[in-house]
Amino acid sequence: MNIVLLEPGELGADRHLRLAGPRAAHLVNVLDVKPGQTVRVGVLEGPRGLATVESVGATSVLLRCDLEAEPPARPRVDLLLALPRPKVMRRLWAQLAALGVSRIVLTNAARVERPYFDTHVLAPECYTPLLIEGLQQARDTRLPQVSIHRQFKVLVEDELDAMSDAVVRLVADPGADARAGEAVRSGLEGNSGARVLLAVGPEGGWNAFELRLLDAHGFRHIGMGPRTLRTDTACLALLALVHDALA
Amino acid sequence: MNIVLLEPGELGADRHLRLAGPRAAHLVNVLDVKPGQTVRVGVLEGPRGLATVESVGATSVLLRCDLEAEPPARPRVDLLLALPRPKVMRRLWAQLAALGVSRIVLTNAARVERPYFDTHVLAPECYTPLLIEGLQQARDTRLPQVSIHRQFKVLVEDELDAMSDAVVRLVADPGADARAGEAVRSGLEGNSGARVLLAVGPEGGWNAFELRLLDAHGFRHIGMGPRTLRTDTACLALLALVHDALA
Repeated sequence: MNIVLLEPGELGADRHLRLAGPRAAHLVNVLDVKPGQTVRVGVLEGPRGLATVESVGATSVLLRCDLEAEPPARPRVDLLLALPRPKVMRRLWAQLAALGVSRIVLTNAARVERPYFDTHVLAPECYTPLLIEGLQQARDTRLPQVSIHRQFKVLVEDELDAMSDAVVRLVADPGADARAGEAVRSGLEGNSGARVLLAVGPEGGWNAFELRLLDAHGFRHIGMGPRTLRTDTACLALLALVHDALA
Repeated sequence: MNIVLLEPGELGADRHLRLAGPRAAHLVNVLDVKPGQTVRVGVLEGPRGLATVESVGATSVLLRCDLEAEPPARPRVDLLLALPRPKVMRRLWAQLAALGVSRIVLTNAARVERPYFDTHVLAPECYTPLLIEGLQQARDTRLPQVSIHRQFKVLVEDELDAMSDAVVRLVADPGADARAGEAVRSGLEGNSGARVLLAVGPEGGWNAFELRLLDAHGFRHIGMGPRTLRTDTACLALLALVHDALA
């Protein structure tokens, strides 16, 4: 935990907060904080800042928080991901939030198996704590916005434009020669603050119809060289490459 | 499975092979191969090629293999990794082999917990099948060489030079401004076929002594921007960035 994240209502007007529960236990037992020390804090969807430890009890910590004026900017990458199997999706939540995505758009595709949608891994009660874990790792406060779509065609044709204003749209394609970094840099020319939408398909790949639909909606194909990766590995690797090109 | 990997002794002089067991089951049940079709094959540590399906039985497949003359080149990246906890290490094996590393050098460090070494995840019977899974994903035949070291100082001072001839040595450091891609490109100038050794520390970071030792042995610090990542995520992300810079 590299930042203590607070719910928006937790911090009162006097900037003081008595923290109990798992976050206090982490401060006391893992970080071994003492009065006078400072720790990083942030309000979910709000600003970050520093908190001074005023006192330490057996199971609680009293903090005085000094927050910045503005929340951090949202990550400049959105992710369109064909729903992977539940075990993989469970592992991805925290890692996606840590690497930094503003939106996670999960979609059906011809090669996504239907039962993948009937899992508690897609319930906000399950994934929100995992996303927060990723934010606490990466010192961010901006929770990725999650949406789940069962109709790929409707999503791409009617809904995606309203969800992501990304100027650069990329689709991972093991056969493509173009590289992510180059595609981001050339796509952003003259548009340096713009956003990127990255699409990653199912384990068996998008089918021909899906690829044509993505092509028709401005997605440029990018590859990662001769090694074919599992979609979850590819997803993390491509997010790293896109963020690197945006930096 | 994007390539069927064979043990070196499996293929006879007549280039024919009757495959049974899990690999045959995958060809029959998942890929639904028919006589006359070709599938990618490779010999572990040997060449890749194509195999023609000659006949398909209920639990076996007869293949005729045509292999290339030379094995593929080994990946140009070596990894020095402070041993992560067993659950994380178990997940990493296949992903590291898929992304492509020639050597995996696992080491102790001040912030590695001792019980991490007493796990079956470090036994070749456990990790070799996981490495092969990663190779089968990435269509490679070159098994990463694994070694496990309990004495960091001895490893860095006396053993590392003989294990990795990498010209560029990088250590992941969340506080560093230099980026992996730039460091690889500048380090390889005039040395375009050379190799990279990437060091990734434990979850709590290297301590000051360890960092000084790495500095003294030519490791350049590279960061990944303002987001702090879990070491396993950082490891995958940095391997992607290094490979991208080598391409």
